[in-house]
Amino acid sequence: MSASEYRCPVYTTASLSPAKRAELLVRPVKASSDILALVEPILASVRNDGDEGLRGCVVKFDRCTPAQDKAFPLVLEAPFADELAQIQPEVKEAIDVAYSNIKTFHSAQMVRESEPIRVETMPGVVCQRFARPIGSVGLYVTALMLGVPAQVAGCKNITLATPPRPDGSISPEIIYIAKLVGAQRVVRAGGAHAIAAMAYGTESVPKADKLYGPGNQFVTAAKMMVAMDSGAQVAIDVPAGPSEVLVIADKTADPALVASDLLGQQEHGLDSQSVLVTIDCDDSYVEAVNAAVAEQARALPRAEILRKSLSQSFILQTRSVEEAFAFSNDYAPEHLLLYLENASSTIELVENAGCGDYASGTNHTLPTVGYAKQYSGVSTSSFLKHFTSQELSPAGLKGLGPYVERLADVEMLGAHKASVSLRLAKIEREGL
Amino acid sequence: MSASEYRCPVYTTASLSPAKRAELLVRPVKASSDILALVEPILASVRNDGDEGLRGCVVKFDRCTPAQDKAFPLVLEAPFADELAQIQPEVKEAIDVAYSNIKTFHSAQMVRESEPIRVETMPGVVCQRFARPIGSVGLYVTALMLGVPAQVAGCKNITLATPPRPDGSISPEIIYIAKLVGAQRVVRAGGAHAIAAMAYGTESVPKADKLYGPGNQFVTAAKMMVAMDSGAQVAIDVPAGPSEVLVIADKTADPALVASDLLGQQEHGLDSQSVLVTIDCDDSYVEAVNAAVAEQARALPRAEILRKSLSQSFILQTRSVEEAFAFSNDYAPEHLLLYLENASSTIELVENAGCGDYASGTNHTLPTVGYAKQYSGVSTSSFLKHFTSQELSPAGLKGLGPYVERLADVEMLGAHKASVSLRLAKIEREGL
Repeated sequence: MSASEYRCPVYTTASLSPAKRAELLVRPVKASSDILALVEPILASVRNDGDEGLRGCVVKFDRCTPAQDKAFPLVLEAPFADELAQIQPEVKEAIDVAYSNIKTFHSAQMVRESEPIRVETMPGVVCQRFARPIGSVGLYVTALMLGVPAQVAGCKNITLATPPRPDGSISPEIIYIAKLVGAQRVVRAGGAHAIAAMAYGTESVPKADKLYGPGNQFVTAAKMMVAMDSGAQVAIDVPAGPSEVLVIADKTADPALVASDLLGQQEHGLDSQSVLVTIDCDDSYVEAVNAAVAEQARALPRAEILRKSLSQSFILQTRSVEEAFAFSNDYAPEHLLLYLENASSTIELVENAGCGDYASGTNHTLPTVGYAKQYSGVSTSSFLKHFTSQELSPAGLKGLGPYVERLADVEMLGAHKASVSLRLAKIEREGL
Repeated sequence: MSASEYRCPVYTTASLSPAKRAELLVRPVKASSDILALVEPILASVRNDGDEGLRGCVVKFDRCTPAQDKAFPLVLEAPFADELAQIQPEVKEAIDVAYSNIKTFHSAQMVRESEPIRVETMPGVVCQRFARPIGSVGLYVTALMLGVPAQVAGCKNITLATPPRPDGSISPEIIYIAKLVGAQRVVRAGGAHAIAAMAYGTESVPKADKLYGPGNQFVTAAKMMVAMDSGAQVAIDVPAGPSEVLVIADKTADPALVASDLLGQQEHGLDSQSVLVTIDCDDSYVEAVNAAVAEQARALPRAEILRKSLSQSFILQTRSVEEAFAFSNDYAPEHLLLYLENASSTIELVENAGCGDYASGTNHTLPTVGYAKQYSGVSTSSFLKHFTSQELSPAGLKGLGPYVERLADVEMLGAHKASVSLRLAKIEREGL
């Protein structure tokens, strides 16, 4: 296998046509109508046949033969036995550190979220805004990054779905995390059928109000479809697609480190895309990155995946910070890495990006394929809903009521107007 | 027309079977597959033919004959001429008061949103969270309640779509509000085609990143469909359905005022539902409410709509505060009104509700048909996206890196691990 197979194509903004620029902004994702057609019968099977449909899918798609036996429980309920969660001490320590960091960061956000907002907009007109945890949430696979914000937000009913191993067991790391975040149960299923079970509910899986977590294209299609189904009454976190990273680097960046991050993203799968945007770097710098990519790739276990996915990644050479961030904001990457002499001063230029990370504390469940333009990553907000209230004193109603009457007139809403007029008359009559 | 036609059916929790209770929680909404089939060609026409497709729909569905002329501009661009915004002084004053209250309340929320969160989760590991306005937003009809939070959030490109009158003009109140909230343009179109134009963009309508606003079932279906279309890359605010209210009242509530609120909701349309939940009220109280409903309904202009929609509303008699709020939380109403001797002490019991209002300051763009279980109403948050950042000092990486290596090992992500290991080696080498 030649080194040149591990290589990202190189473009420069100086010679980039608007059409080619637009093309580079589009992700290498496959068309989805055939995926929807494959997912629809899976959803129908679980929706119509409940546990029986789910069990069939677990046998077929998760290749879990023990699930053929009707005595095989599809769901493990808390409290989970300690022997299911026995892990290496050093792995336990690493999970504990990640858990603690994620909890610290999300708790700081929750302090702000949980405090009601109270404003007296006019004398006697008091408006408030409150947060409440979403009651029943369904987490797909990503246990730590979804479980911690759910726990911090105060969700009472946390279901985690994760594919079983061929022998039907669940990895002890997952059970350990499920215990940490206070999950009520672990559903032994992956894929579209796991999404269906949590969206519609079955005999053993309670229906969730909202679903979270990235997955492959079948999982993503299933999430979109249940979110569209008003019969399911379920929300989803973000439309998730293949993982992606955009690195902005100037010549102070170590080519070997840049290369390692481009490769780190690629190992998520064939659809993953890594983009490097260089600022004022010459061709020899770009060649140094590509050489480091080739060298590191050959040493990695998933070399075949890397070779294919690198060909759909690319390097773009730009001449200025402005040009680089303009491209990055239009691309709206899931993960954005800044290798710049003065990175923190450029945060102001970031308009669209997911960012996020592994264990530092921030969340890495993020919008992909450009959805960072309109979606946020998962946070405690994702596990809360807000509502507002207003209380009007008689004085408040006397002040505001006449304006509401006029607005109702303009919109020709007679009953709305009458509702206010009746109250104003009562206040008048009773001398309030 | 006899008074008994204006009457809500009455149930009591004491004699309510679980099956009947479940039935009462379901909204009287029609099946939607035929609506999707009607909407799909409308979306396709605008997506494929741009302005020409949009123009055809404006003529056909908005019944706007002047739009047949290709010289008729489908879009009014800011700055809007003063003569297009000439309104009665008392209407202007009412809009100004509502604008000011809504702005005051949403600004209080924005103060909190705009302040970045910064946490050092471990020594040298700094995590932050930032908010950015969504770049390009498309507002459907509800100008004041959507335009103010968009403006307060700092959205730079605000498009408002509203159906033109048969002569092609836009009501001056709408233009006045568009000026107030700083909208860039008003699209003269209503219905599914207006949604399509903002979702996909046309020659004269820029593509929006996110769409907002309630509408009829065609608008709702169109919003769901574009949100599902990964080619559109557009988000929506909330799945909106027919409007609804749930009133919780005890015997201290004036039956005439309760009746006026039940009727106020009904005039939104045939699918609207009003629910009254009484606490410890006898049959004569319920009869007094129904008598007031009948009396007031006959005096209202939209009497025919009211007669039909009241038959699918209902009154539920409960025996306790707990029973009443349990039903209300399961129903998850768009609007919740509390007529209780001690209303503010019961706010704690509200788990699921949209609430909101007309001009007091809070937002009335709210989740319907039970979606208050998982969605919030529109707020400044709806017009923002958040992203996080982390910066690791060498000391921070030395502290965190070994744990990340272990977690990458467990997940068998070799390139992720190598990316950290390279950095740790560099720190070691350079004595950082």
